[in-house]
Amino acid sequence: LELIAQKVAERTGIPVHKKDIERIIQSFMTNPDFWYIVYLSSQPFNAVAETIKVMKEEGFVLEDKQGKLFLSEEGKKLADKYSIKPRLDFSCKVCGRKGISLEKLKELLQKFKEIVQTRPPAIIDYDQGYVTPETTISRIALLADRGDIQGKDIIILGDDDLVSIAAALSGLPKRVVILEIDERITNFIKKVSKERNLEIEAVQFDLRKKLPDEFLGKFDTFLTDPPETVEAFEAFVGRGLATLKGGGCTGYFGLTYSESSYPKWNEFQKILVEKFKVVITDIIHDFNEYVNWDYLLPSIRDDLSFVQKKPSFNWYRSSQYRIITLENFLRWNEEMTGEEFYVDKDALTYSRRREDVE
Amino acid sequence: LELIAQKVAERTGIPVHKKDIERIIQSFMTNPDFWYIVYLSSQPFNAVAETIKVMKEEGFVLEDKQGKLFLSEEGKKLADKYSIKPRLDFSCKVCGRKGISLEKLKELLQKFKEIVQTRPPAIIDYDQGYVTPETTISRIALLADRGDIQGKDIIILGDDDLVSIAAALSGLPKRVVILEIDERITNFIKKVSKERNLEIEAVQFDLRKKLPDEFLGKFDTFLTDPPETVEAFEAFVGRGLATLKGGGCTGYFGLTYSESSYPKWNEFQKILVEKFKVVITDIIHDFNEYVNWDYLLPSIRDDLSFVQKKPSFNWYRSSQYRIITLENFLRWNEEMTGEEFYVDKDALTYSRRREDVE
Repeated sequence: LELIAQKVAERTGIPVHKKDIERIIQSFMTNPDFWYIVYLSSQPFNAVAETIKVMKEEGFVLEDKQGKLFLSEEGKKLADKYSIKPRLDFSCKVCGRKGISLEKLKELLQKFKEIVQTRPPAIIDYDQGYVTPETTISRIALLADRGDIQGKDIIILGDDDLVSIAAALSGLPKRVVILEIDERITNFIKKVSKERNLEIEAVQFDLRKKLPDEFLGKFDTFLTDPPETVEAFEAFVGRGLATLKGGGCTGYFGLTYSESSYPKWNEFQKILVEKFKVVITDIIHDFNEYVNWDYLLPSIRDDLSFVQKKPSFNWYRSSQYRIITLENFLRWNEEMTGEEFYVDKDALTYSRRREDVE
Repeated sequence: LELIAQKVAERTGIPVHKKDIERIIQSFMTNPDFWYIVYLSSQPFNAVAETIKVMKEEGFVLEDKQGKLFLSEEGKKLADKYSIKPRLDFSCKVCGRKGISLEKLKELLQKFKEIVQTRPPAIIDYDQGYVTPETTISRIALLADRGDIQGKDIIILGDDDLVSIAAALSGLPKRVVILEIDERITNFIKKVSKERNLEIEAVQFDLRKKLPDEFLGKFDTFLTDPPETVEAFEAFVGRGLATLKGGGCTGYFGLTYSESSYPKWNEFQKILVEKFKVVITDIIHDFNEYVNWDYLLPSIRDDLSFVQKKPSFNWYRSSQYRIITLENFLRWNEEMTGEEFYVDKDALTYSRRREDVE
């Protein structure tokens, strides 16, 4: 396992170790579908793809004609030697690990589903990809369950998930503001607000830029969904913090394993608790479920047959974070210039974008 | 609100601010029962009790003959002014915010319930208080759902929750070891192991002491339930880490708001991500539900009628943490001598123990 981990780490530039390989083996002992393995292993997509490639080369993994993946006899011996057993699914079938119920929000969900039928499709330019309507409404339920939306001033930094529409429809917040770079989305939200008589302030804004004064220190709660580079994380979450009124305010955002290794999660967490001086109160596994987006297969590596197979379920998930500001929290609001804003080595599209450049 | 917060902070020594008071007001707009307010507000018990005392003195809160708490007309105006609305309960009724289902584990739960009928009662000497049988089995389900128990070597540091018995009964782990200071508990576990033919290694051990070599670097997963002082947290979680084989191993433990303010949570999180070099992968709100313990009322402040009322439900909860070690994580194993091991200003029993001394 050490050797496999070393090879994968060398080829991908992602820190991969023995226990990570164990988790990937656990996952394909549980389900032979590549996208399910990525989902289950909680490892970066590129690390999982490369691990399977290496294990195929070494004869531990077999691929059948449908692209399903199995342990060979050698692979089974390896699993036995390291006492690796399949995963067991004990998720709550009602809430799907969210811990939140939509029972009382059926009407809101129905209305929201109608509205978003004509939403703009996700495009690669801004690293887009939106969550299921159930996930969007679950976020509203989560905020209400924790007391962070009723009577509150809410801001959403980047809103391809259309949380602003769900929030305004719920009638709970006092004020809803969104900042979004993509004019297709701000226009869509403006159109819906007008048609449905919702009060949403939609502003076109590039979050790489400094926030103007009018948004600083004005909100109780922010929501965002940062691209998973350190730079973008700081810009999205940091500016989210800058919009808050003071200590005891809250922020909500998602982080994946598919695009962020454990060491990167640790980096993000150090930024949160040390630099930004906030408390992480919740990390809810599997909370956010993304709808498969059209540009996935053309944007990822095309040298592996099992990877270039259309996913049959919503495999791309993220953990939902909730944070609370301490009194001395950092109101981060610096100008960004980085070119690596959307993509690093953990990104799904890393190898393709690298090719484009080379 | 600022003034109330200041008074409470001065009298309790706990950092309490405007938004904390808002959360407490939200809570008693939702439910008039003191213990429910403590549960719902996610604030230290002593801060909540003192806030209500101050708000009663200032005429914002009324107490009826049954000890129920309400906003007065003045209090309602205050809530209106700050746009404070009641909490809304969107918890999943099936799993109770845990995200985990016990559907497939009914038999295990039943067996476990039979066994624990004769367990030793919780005593104050070691800050004991155990979780419901459902919670113990949910922990096993959570570990299995994440792949952290099947075929693994497991150690439990302090086991008044009897997780070791549930783990061994499940048949999942390769090895189960417990370290526990209370001989009543080690004896109970030994007796049960013998009767039921379970393989559990139960060792009487005081976690203030350095772990001997035989336990270092030997386990895949540890579980613990630390008393919530910085010293005890380091000793329980740090020694848990010292028992692990290497990077990518996991640890599980709970933290409350009733005995730990947000700034203390931030301290704990800094220790985890910065000093111990681990990643927090999950914080599951409300996961651990404690059975009300006999010594509660005699151990807490006795000058407030609404506090000295027996709780009618299991109000004491904790959030379930799951952590994963990075490759360079700290194997903490220092000798402890602190007298403040079990109690600090956030502790339930702080005022009483202080009285004992004065």
